[in-house]
Amino acid sequence: MKKILSSLALLTSFHVSAEAPQNIIMVVSDGMGPAYTTAYRYYNDDPATPEIETTIFDKYHVGSSSTYPAKVSGLVTDSAASATALASGVKSYNGAIGVDVNEQPVKSVLHQAKQIGKKTGIVVTSQINHATPAAYMVHNKSRQNYDEIADSYFDNRINDQFIADLMLGGGWQYFIRKDRNVVNDFKSSGFHYLDDYNQLSNLPKDKPVLGLFADKGMPQALDYGDKYRLSTMTAAALDYLPNDKGMFLLIEASQVDWGGHSNDIAYSMSEMSDLEKTMAVLEKFVEQNPDTLVVLTADHSTGGMTIGANGDYAWHPTWIKNLTASTQSMAQEIGDNGLDVLKLQQALGFQLTPEEQDELTTQMDKALAYWTENEIKFLAKGYSQASTVTRKMRKAITQLIDKRTNTGWTTSGHTGVDVPVYAFGKNSELFIGQLDNVDIATTIFNLLK
Amino acid sequence: MKKILSSLALLTSFHVSAEAPQNIIMVVSDGMGPAYTTAYRYYNDDPATPEIETTIFDKYHVGSSSTYPAKVSGLVTDSAASATALASGVKSYNGAIGVDVNEQPVKSVLHQAKQIGKKTGIVVTSQINHATPAAYMVHNKSRQNYDEIADSYFDNRINDQFIADLMLGGGWQYFIRKDRNVVNDFKSSGFHYLDDYNQLSNLPKDKPVLGLFADKGMPQALDYGDKYRLSTMTAAALDYLPNDKGMFLLIEASQVDWGGHSNDIAYSMSEMSDLEKTMAVLEKFVEQNPDTLVVLTADHSTGGMTIGANGDYAWHPTWIKNLTASTQSMAQEIGDNGLDVLKLQQALGFQLTPEEQDELTTQMDKALAYWTENEIKFLAKGYSQASTVTRKMRKAITQLIDKRTNTGWTTSGHTGVDVPVYAFGKNSELFIGQLDNVDIATTIFNLLK
Repeated sequence: MKKILSSLALLTSFHVSAEAPQNIIMVVSDGMGPAYTTAYRYYNDDPATPEIETTIFDKYHVGSSSTYPAKVSGLVTDSAASATALASGVKSYNGAIGVDVNEQPVKSVLHQAKQIGKKTGIVVTSQINHATPAAYMVHNKSRQNYDEIADSYFDNRINDQFIADLMLGGGWQYFIRKDRNVVNDFKSSGFHYLDDYNQLSNLPKDKPVLGLFADKGMPQALDYGDKYRLSTMTAAALDYLPNDKGMFLLIEASQVDWGGHSNDIAYSMSEMSDLEKTMAVLEKFVEQNPDTLVVLTADHSTGGMTIGANGDYAWHPTWIKNLTASTQSMAQEIGDNGLDVLKLQQALGFQLTPEEQDELTTQMDKALAYWTENEIKFLAKGYSQASTVTRKMRKAITQLIDKRTNTGWTTSGHTGVDVPVYAFGKNSELFIGQLDNVDIATTIFNLLK
Repeated sequence: MKKILSSLALLTSFHVSAEAPQNIIMVVSDGMGPAYTTAYRYYNDDPATPEIETTIFDKYHVGSSSTYPAKVSGLVTDSAASATALASGVKSYNGAIGVDVNEQPVKSVLHQAKQIGKKTGIVVTSQINHATPAAYMVHNKSRQNYDEIADSYFDNRINDQFIADLMLGGGWQYFIRKDRNVVNDFKSSGFHYLDDYNQLSNLPKDKPVLGLFADKGMPQALDYGDKYRLSTMTAAALDYLPNDKGMFLLIEASQVDWGGHSNDIAYSMSEMSDLEKTMAVLEKFVEQNPDTLVVLTADHSTGGMTIGANGDYAWHPTWIKNLTASTQSMAQEIGDNGLDVLKLQQALGFQLTPEEQDELTTQMDKALAYWTENEIKFLAKGYSQASTVTRKMRKAITQLIDKRTNTGWTTSGHTGVDVPVYAFGKNSELFIGQLDNVDIATTIFNLLK
């Protein structure tokens, strides 16, 4: 009976309470289907120990969520429709930002939190006006209207107040434009603005904060000085936001998805690594602030990634554990300066076989020939030889890694598989079992009455 | 607060009890990774209604399980190692049937149930000596030793009793052999033997039962007179097994996996349909016999199947809803009698486009040419023209269906993604959250003290 009793203890460790939590932290890991969280366990495993180590995700797994959009968009969602569902509890069409199928605005849980007097924040590694944060913040008929969305971040109000007290991520090119400088608008209205990531530790608590650290999305974790930029920004938010009325914080691990779109397993796993550290920061916060709910899920899965492929019952994550740069950086180095096997090996963290070296040389020759064949056309489009070779060689490197790791992919887009759900802290028991993405918003709305 | 209270009600609907259940029913759906249960929801959906209908799986989803084998076999399991883990709580090597990494026998939960006086049964759609049931029943260093395993079903004893009181599935070729007729052995020892599926309704309760209905695995659900053969056998088992000391029943939806290995989405979905009906039979049984625990999981995922592929955000299950025969039967008809488009359309349940007809004609010509080129070699191997054309045309038909449905695959083998877990009835709360496959056995062992 020991196991039964300990499992019952685990069950009752869910903080069952009809009192709503003061702080709600919603974490969206874009593109993180079940193959990603599973793969991360094996990527993260210490091969020196006999056991496979579990992850912080395993600790808080409570069920799954379906992700399909409104029927008009079929069964496979994009990030906008799914973020609208997660934020507002309303199924909409692919591309919709905080609007329903009739393009009418729908209220988000972040709006509701602001309305009842809580502080609100968004912390993302994409541009802050990308689909997921945008669906929590504003309303637009299309995710592609980046400038309009950026404008709405300033122009829209909830009870005459700015929507968010804290916004951290990328996006200079949308907020500092020739036609409008939204950063200046924020500054003139009393916002503290920072564009230096290293100044995160000293946010002034008496002012709202806008922190933009990149032109669009932030650099990949693998290329960033601080490989844990999401967890660093999260720690800053958790230092800044808490107050006696509580907070709602949206955190997005935006680039797990971008790795998936590029079929780049090393990219996605390193972004997951930043997410894991972020979850550890949140876990510590909840230990110290038990009146807090944390929910983590994904908006959909990306790339049709599979752990094993091609008839081989194997997956070898060790080959992506020692990368010192992203595949994008490695390819750019080759695009700029030609193929240097020694340099590439250093970046990959392993020796290339003669066959792999031959294959890369072949691909390099093909990339250069491709450029030569299309030079006039490509120059007219503004492509350079370096950017063309970079694109082709990135594909060559990710395919080399796929062979080494035996990773499979079926698409450059999304897939419809249910995504895992994780929850801890107060009221986390409400997320046990099978959910649909709208249920997550509905439950959070009920905690924000 | 309404949602909170109803969720709390849902939580407490788990039958929390330190008393072990009288009946334990373990259901293994071979190969059913998360993409399969998700896909089934959409396959099963009634397009005439505005909502997506949830499935019986959704109702009882409680978490996920990892499936990796012992380290010696890497990260991607086969069905033998995973069944050994699920049955005995011990990680072993791929191929192991109820033995550990040192090839030493390990006790299964079915053995434990028999030891404490419960009736035991296995109900599967594969041959009954296939990897999954075999790991619950006996011990063998290799799943390939089908004859030895069949012999052990008779030769091995638990407390001087036969291991199982009821065995239903396929397997004539292993149990009725030139060197030994194991069916006769069972009959001489008092077993009631049936080889007619239609006699399932009248099992004599005073004798142990062996029912074999096919040479190896049973025909596909799509080709069977009774498309719900697993649920029919399950109903028979639930009529036969219950007694005042309780029962342990292993049910396997064996062929979801076989569809995955063949990258045949129609095959897997129709097997899932039989499983869904089986779950409904179990649900009714638990309503009437609340002292029962039902756990459903998969041993691994198969085929790297993805809902959507090739950059297209779409999946169209309607094209596999009206099949009147398996792709194997359709291909065999073509192998035997040539390509007849009208007949094929009738079997598929939809009209082929001119392009699809052209493609099939091309594939047919290729298949015939392939036969002609290799005729002497193939005849020596015992292949016929019909079997060769059948194999090639089955691939052509499944690829046509993949295009129509936009289904992706990455492998003919297994993948390592965590699989979903479902539980209901007494003590079902013990299976909430993230588990490893060995935890499922460990928890059941603790309920069989």
